[in-house]
Amino acid sequence: MYRKNVVMRILGLDPSLSSTGWGVVEVENNRVRYVADGFIATNVKAPIAERLKEINKTLSEVIEQYNPNEAAIEQVFLNSNPTSTIKLGMARGVVIMTPAQYGISVTEYEPNKVKKAVVGVGKAEKNQVETMVKILLPGCKPKNNDASDALAIALCHFQYRNAYGRK
Amino acid sequence: MYRKNVVMRILGLDPSLSSTGWGVVEVENNRVRYVADGFIATNVKAPIAERLKEINKTLSEVIEQYNPNEAAIEQVFLNSNPTSTIKLGMARGVVIMTPAQYGISVTEYEPNKVKKAVVGVGKAEKNQVETMVKILLPGCKPKNNDASDALAIALCHFQYRNAYGRK
Repeated sequence: MYRKNVVMRILGLDPSLSSTGWGVVEVENNRVRYVADGFIATNVKAPIAERLKEINKTLSEVIEQYNPNEAAIEQVFLNSNPTSTIKLGMARGVVIMTPAQYGISVTEYEPNKVKKAVVGVGKAEKNQVETMVKILLPGCKPKNNDASDALAIALCHFQYRNAYGRK
Repeated sequence: MYRKNVVMRILGLDPSLSSTGWGVVEVENNRVRYVADGFIATNVKAPIAERLKEINKTLSEVIEQYNPNEAAIEQVFLNSNPTSTIKLGMARGVVIMTPAQYGISVTEYEPNKVKKAVVGVGKAEKNQVETMVKILLPGCKPKNNDASDALAIALCHFQYRNAYGRK
Protein backbone atom coordinates (compact mmCIF):
# COMPACT_ATOMS: atom_id res chain seq x y z
CA MET A 1 0.00 0.00 0.00
CA TYR A 2 1.34 3.42 -0.91
CA ARG A 3 1.14 5.91 1.93
CA LYS A 4 2.06 9.56 1.58
CA ASN A 5 2.64 12.20 4.23
CA VAL A 6 3.36 9.56 6.82
CA VAL A 7 4.87 11.52 9.67
CA MET A 8 6.86 9.66 12.30
CA ARG A 9 9.14 10.77 15.08
CA ILE A 10 12.40 9.25 16.27
CA LEU A 11 13.80 9.71 19.78
CA GLY A 12 17.61 9.45 20.02
CA LEU A 13 19.10 8.70 23.44
CA ASP A 14 22.61 9.09 24.84
CA PRO A 15 22.48 7.77 28.42
CA SER A 16 24.71 8.56 31.37
CA LEU A 17 24.08 8.93 35.09
CA SER A 18 25.14 12.59 35.21
CA SER A 19 23.67 13.81 31.91
CA THR A 20 21.43 11.82 29.57
CA GLY A 21 21.06 13.46 26.16
CA TRP A 22 17.84 13.21 24.15
CA GLY A 23 16.84 14.45 20.72
CA VAL A 24 13.67 14.18 18.63
CA VAL A 25 13.52 14.34 14.84
CA GLU A 26 10.52 14.08 12.55
CA VAL A 27 10.43 12.16 9.29
CA GLU A 28 7.97 13.04 6.54
CA ASN A 29 8.13 11.92 2.91
CA ASN A 30 11.61 10.57 3.51
CA ARG A 31 12.86 13.95 4.75
CA VAL A 32 14.00 14.59 8.26
CA ARG A 33 13.66 17.73 10.39
CA TYR A 34 14.58 18.85 13.88
CA VAL A 35 11.91 18.81 16.60
CA ALA A 36 13.59 19.17 19.99
CA ASP A 37 16.59 18.22 22.10
CA GLY A 38 17.83 18.43 25.66
CA PHE A 39 19.64 16.68 28.45
CA ILE A 40 18.65 15.30 31.82
CA ALA A 41 21.21 16.38 34.41
CA THR A 42 20.99 14.72 37.82
CA ASN A 43 22.24 15.91 41.21
CA VAL A 44 25.63 14.26 41.79
CA LYS A 45 25.06 14.44 45.56
CA ALA A 46 21.73 12.55 45.46
CA PRO A 47 21.57 8.75 46.00
CA ILE A 48 21.87 6.77 42.75
CA ALA A 49 18.30 5.41 43.12
CA GLU A 50 16.97 8.99 43.21
CA ARG A 51 19.06 10.02 40.20
CA LEU A 52 17.76 7.05 38.19
CA LYS A 53 14.18 7.86 39.23
CA GLU A 54 14.74 11.42 37.99
CA ILE A 55 16.01 10.13 34.62
CA ASN A 56 12.96 7.85 34.24
CA LYS A 57 10.53 10.63 35.25
CA THR A 58 11.99 13.34 33.00
CA LEU A 59 12.41 10.99 30.04
CA SER A 60 8.76 9.92 30.48
CA GLU A 61 7.74 13.59 30.29
CA VAL A 62 9.81 14.03 27.10
CA ILE A 63 8.07 11.00 25.56
CA GLU A 64 4.62 12.26 26.57
CA GLN A 65 5.37 15.73 25.18
CA TYR A 66 6.89 14.70 21.82
CA ASN A 67 5.20 11.33 21.17
CA PRO A 68 8.03 9.53 19.34
CA ASN A 69 7.14 6.38 17.38
CA GLU A 70 10.55 4.74 17.63
CA ALA A 71 13.66 5.18 19.76
CA ALA A 72 17.37 4.57 19.18
CA ILE A 73 20.31 4.31 21.54
CA GLU A 74 24.06 3.97 21.09
CA GLN A 75 25.56 0.65 22.08
CA VAL A 76 27.57 1.08 25.18
CA PHE A 77 31.13 2.26 25.40
CA LEU A 78 32.83 -0.30 27.64
CA ASN A 79 34.93 1.63 30.10
CA SER A 80 38.08 -0.02 31.42
CA ASN A 81 36.99 1.03 34.92
CA PRO A 82 34.37 -1.52 36.12
CA THR A 83 32.82 0.96 38.58
CA SER A 84 32.21 3.44 35.74
CA THR A 85 30.88 0.61 33.57
CA ILE A 86 28.35 -0.43 36.20
CA LYS A 87 27.18 3.18 36.70
CA LEU A 88 26.78 3.67 32.98
CA GLY A 89 24.95 0.32 32.85
CA MET A 90 22.52 1.44 35.54
CA ALA A 91 21.66 4.67 33.70
CA ARG A 92 21.46 2.79 30.41
CA GLY A 93 19.07 0.21 31.89
CA VAL A 94 16.63 2.89 33.01
CA VAL A 95 16.96 4.85 29.74
CA ILE A 96 16.37 1.82 27.50
CA MET A 97 13.43 0.67 29.64
CA THR A 98 11.54 3.97 29.60
CA PRO A 99 10.44 3.98 25.90
CA ALA A 100 9.48 0.28 26.32
CA GLN A 101 7.07 1.40 29.07
CA TYR A 102 5.27 3.37 26.34
CA GLY A 103 5.34 0.49 23.85
CA ILE A 104 8.09 2.19 21.81
CA SER A 105 10.77 -0.07 20.32
CA VAL A 106 14.41 0.81 20.98
CA THR A 107 17.09 -0.02 18.38
CA GLU A 108 20.77 -0.14 19.37
CA TYR A 109 23.60 1.13 17.16
CA GLU A 110 27.35 0.76 17.52
CA PRO A 111 29.11 4.12 18.15
CA ASN A 112 31.05 3.83 14.87
CA LYS A 113 27.82 3.28 12.97
CA VAL A 114 26.35 6.48 14.40
CA LYS A 115 29.43 8.50 13.45
CA LYS A 116 29.54 6.95 10.00
CA ALA A 117 25.84 7.70 9.41
CA VAL A 118 26.23 11.35 10.37
CA VAL A 119 29.80 12.33 9.46
CA GLY A 120 30.60 9.67 6.85
CA VAL A 121 33.50 8.11 8.76
CA GLY A 122 33.44 5.85 11.82
CA LYS A 123 36.22 7.61 13.69
CA ALA A 124 34.87 11.16 13.68
CA GLU A 125 35.61 13.61 16.48
CA LYS A 126 32.90 14.92 18.83
CA ASN A 127 32.84 18.39 17.26
CA GLN A 128 32.53 16.93 13.74
CA VAL A 129 29.40 15.10 14.88
CA GLU A 130 27.92 18.32 16.24
CA THR A 131 28.79 20.27 13.10
CA MET A 132 27.09 17.66 10.90
CA VAL A 133 24.04 17.46 13.16
CA LYS A 134 23.60 21.24 12.72
CA ILE A 135 23.97 20.93 8.93
CA LEU A 136 21.60 17.97 8.62
CA LEU A 137 19.03 19.56 10.92
CA PRO A 138 18.82 23.25 9.99
CA GLY A 139 17.73 25.49 12.84
CA CYS A 140 18.88 23.12 15.51
CA LYS A 141 21.21 24.37 18.26
CA PRO A 142 21.89 21.36 20.49
CA LYS A 143 21.75 22.23 24.22
CA ASN A 144 25.04 20.40 24.89
CA ASN A 145 27.24 17.55 23.58
CA ASP A 146 24.95 14.85 24.99
CA ALA A 147 21.92 16.37 23.26
CA SER A 148 23.93 16.65 20.03
CA ASP A 149 24.97 12.97 20.29
CA ALA A 150 21.36 11.98 20.90
CA LEU A 151 20.29 13.81 17.71
CA ALA A 152 23.09 12.01 15.84
CA ILE A 153 21.71 8.68 17.07
CA ALA A 154 18.21 9.67 15.92
CA LEU A 155 19.66 10.59 12.47
CA CYS A 156 21.50 7.27 12.34
CA HIS A 157 18.23 5.44 12.99
CA PHE A 158 16.53 7.50 10.29
CA GLN A 159 19.18 6.42 7.75
CA TYR A 160 19.23 2.75 8.70
CA ARG A 161 15.47 2.31 8.88
CA ASN A 162 15.21 3.95 5.46
CA ALA A 163 17.93 1.71 4.06
CA TYR A 164 15.93 -1.31 5.19
CA GLY A 165 12.74 0.08 3.66
CA ARG A 166 10.83 0.54 6.91
CA LYS A 167 9.65 4.05 6.00
CA MET B 1 10.59 8.42 72.50
CA TYR B 2 9.91 4.79 73.34
CA ARG B 3 7.72 3.04 70.81
CA LYS B 4 6.52 -0.52 71.14
CA ASN B 5 5.01 -2.84 68.59
CA VAL B 6 6.46 -0.85 65.76
CA VAL B 7 6.16 -3.15 62.79
CA MET B 8 8.26 -2.48 59.75
CA ARG B 9 9.08 -4.44 56.64
CA ILE B 10 12.37 -4.78 54.77
CA LEU B 11 12.64 -5.72 51.11
CA GLY B 12 15.89 -7.45 50.13
CA LEU B 13 16.89 -7.41 46.46
CA ASP B 14 19.36 -9.50 44.44
CA PRO B 15 19.28 -8.11 40.89
CA SER B 16 20.17 -9.80 37.62
CA LEU B 17 18.75 -9.60 34.12
CA SER B 18 17.71 -13.26 34.00
CA SER B 19 16.47 -13.71 37.57
CA THR B 20 16.08 -10.96 40.17
CA GLY B 21 15.55 -12.35 43.67
CA TRP B 22 13.37 -10.56 46.22
CA GLY B 23 12.55 -11.29 49.85
CA VAL B 24 10.43 -9.51 52.48
CA VAL B 25 10.93 -9.79 56.25
CA GLU B 26 8.97 -8.13 59.03
CA VAL B 27 10.52 -6.61 62.14
CA GLU B 28 8.52 -6.23 65.36
CA ASN B 29 9.92 -5.57 68.83
CA ASN B 30 13.40 -6.18 67.53
CA ARG B 31 12.48 -9.63 66.25
CA VAL B 32 12.43 -10.59 62.60
CA ARG B 33 10.13 -12.96 60.76
CA TYR B 34 9.64 -14.23 57.23
CA VAL B 35 6.93 -12.68 55.06
CA ALA B 36 7.51 -13.68 51.43
CA ASP B 37 10.12 -14.30 48.75
CA GLY B 38 10.36 -14.95 45.04
CA PHE B 39 12.26 -14.24 41.87
CA ILE B 40 11.52 -12.38 38.67
CA ALA B 41 12.60 -14.49 35.72
CA THR B 42 12.66 -12.78 32.32
CA ASN B 43 12.46 -14.23 28.83
CA VAL B 44 16.03 -14.55 27.52
CA LYS B 45 14.74 -14.22 23.96
CA ALA B 46 12.98 -10.89 24.57
CA PRO B 47 14.71 -7.54 23.88
CA ILE B 48 16.60 -6.18 26.90
CA ALA B 49 14.26 -3.16 27.14
CA GLU B 50 11.28 -5.52 27.48
CA ARG B 51 13.04 -7.64 30.11
CA LEU B 52 13.87 -4.53 32.16
CA LYS B 53 10.27 -3.32 31.85
CA GLU B 54 9.12 -6.71 33.15
CA ILE B 55 11.47 -6.45 36.15
CA ASN B 56 10.19 -2.94 36.97
CA LYS B 57 6.55 -4.00 36.58
CA THR B 58 6.77 -7.17 38.66
CA LEU B 59 8.89 -5.56 41.36
CA SER B 60 6.33 -2.72 41.55
CA GLU B 61 3.60 -5.34 42.12
CA VAL B 62 5.69 -6.95 44.90
CA ILE B 63 6.11 -3.54 46.57
CA GLU B 64 2.39 -2.77 46.28
CA GLN B 65 1.47 -6.18 47.69
CA TYR B 66 3.89 -6.28 50.65
CA ASN B 67 4.36 -2.56 51.42
CA PRO B 68 7.99 -2.60 52.59
CA ASN B 69 9.25 0.45 54.53
CA GLU B 70 12.90 0.09 53.55
CA ALA B 71 14.87 -1.78 50.91
CA ALA B 72 18.38 -3.22 50.75
CA ILE B 73 20.54 -4.41 47.86
CA GLU B 74 23.92 -6.06 47.59
CA GLN B 75 26.72 -3.95 46.16
CA VAL B 76 27.59 -5.21 42.78
CA PHE B 77 29.90 -8.05 41.95
CA LEU B 78 32.24 -6.64 39.31
CA ASN B 79 32.52 -9.23 36.61
CA SER B 80 35.76 -9.39 34.64
CA ASN B 81 33.65 -9.55 31.48
CA PRO B 82 32.57 -5.95 30.65
CA THR B 83 29.53 -7.13 28.65
CA SER B 84 28.26 -9.07 31.68
CA THR B 85 29.02 -6.09 33.92
CA ILE B 86 26.97 -3.75 31.76
CA LYS B 87 24.02 -6.20 31.66
CA LEU B 88 24.12 -6.60 35.42
CA GLY B 89 24.36 -2.82 35.73
CA MET B 90 21.25 -2.38 33.57
CA ALA B 91 19.20 -4.77 35.72
CA ARG B 92 20.61 -3.24 38.89
CA GLY B 93 19.70 0.29 37.74
CA VAL B 94 16.06 -0.68 37.23
CA VAL B 95 15.93 -2.70 40.48
CA ILE B 96 17.42 0.07 42.65
CA MET B 97 15.18 2.71 41.03
CA THR B 98 11.89 0.87 41.58
CA PRO B 99 11.65 1.23 45.42
CA ALA B 100 12.69 4.90 45.01
CA GLN B 101 9.60 5.34 42.81
CA TYR B 102 7.58 4.46 45.94
CA GLY B 103 9.59 6.75 48.22
CA ILE B 104 11.38 3.76 49.78
CA SER B 105 15.07 4.24 50.64
CA VAL B 106 17.53 1.63 49.35
CA THR B 107 20.67 0.80 51.35
CA GLU B 108 23.62 -0.94 49.67
CA TYR B 109 25.74 -3.61 51.39
CA GLU B 110 29.00 -5.22 50.31
CA PRO B 111 28.62 -8.96 49.55
CA ASN B 112 30.99 -9.90 52.38
CA LYS B 113 28.93 -7.85 54.83
CA VAL B 114 25.78 -9.74 53.85
CA LYS B 115 27.47 -13.13 54.33
CA LYS B 116 29.01 -12.04 57.61
CA ALA B 117 25.65 -10.79 58.90
CA VAL B 118 23.90 -14.06 58.08
CA VAL B 119 26.54 -16.79 58.37
CA GLY B 120 29.07 -15.07 60.64
CA VAL B 121 31.94 -15.13 58.16
CA GLY B 122 32.50 -13.01 55.06
CA LYS B 123 33.57 -15.84 52.80
CA ALA B 124 30.61 -18.18 53.24
CA GLU B 125 29.42 -20.51 50.48
CA LYS B 126 26.07 -20.09 48.73
CA ASN B 127 24.51 -23.13 50.47
CA GLN B 128 25.65 -21.91 53.91
CA VAL B 129 23.78 -18.67 53.28
CA GLU B 130 20.60 -20.57 52.38
CA THR B 131 20.92 -22.85 55.42
CA MET B 132 21.26 -19.86 57.76
CA VAL B 133 18.40 -18.00 56.08
CA LYS B 134 16.15 -21.01 56.81
CA ILE B 135 17.32 -21.15 60.45
CA LEU B 136 16.95 -17.40 61.04
CA LEU B 137 13.54 -17.30 59.34
CA PRO B 138 11.65 -20.41 60.48
CA GLY B 139 9.02 -21.61 58.04
CA CYS B 140 10.72 -20.04 55.04
CA LYS B 141 11.49 -22.16 51.99
CA PRO B 142 13.20 -19.83 49.50
CA LYS B 143 11.96 -20.30 45.91
CA ASN B 144 15.51 -20.40 44.55
CA ASN B 145 19.06 -19.18 45.27
CA ASP B 146 18.29 -15.64 44.17
CA ALA B 147 15.30 -15.44 46.52
CA SER B 148 17.43 -16.88 49.33
CA ASP B 149 20.17 -14.29 48.68
CA ALA B 150 17.55 -11.53 48.70
CA LEU B 151 16.29 -12.70 52.13
CA ALA B 152 19.92 -12.73 53.35
CA ILE B 153 20.28 -9.10 52.22
CA ALA B 154 17.05 -8.19 54.06
CA LEU B 155 18.43 -9.90 57.21
CA CYS B 156 21.71 -8.02 56.82
CA HIS B 157 19.82 -4.73 56.69
CA PHE B 158 17.82 -5.75 59.79
CA GLN B 159 21.06 -6.34 61.71
CA TYR B 160 22.85 -3.19 60.58
CA ARG B 161 19.91 -0.84 61.07
CA ASN B 162 19.47 -2.27 64.58
CA ALA B 163 23.15 -1.82 65.33
CA TYR B 164 22.83 1.85 64.41
CA GLY B 165 19.73 2.27 66.56
CA ARG B 166 17.31 2.96 63.70
CA LYS B 167 14.67 0.54 65.02
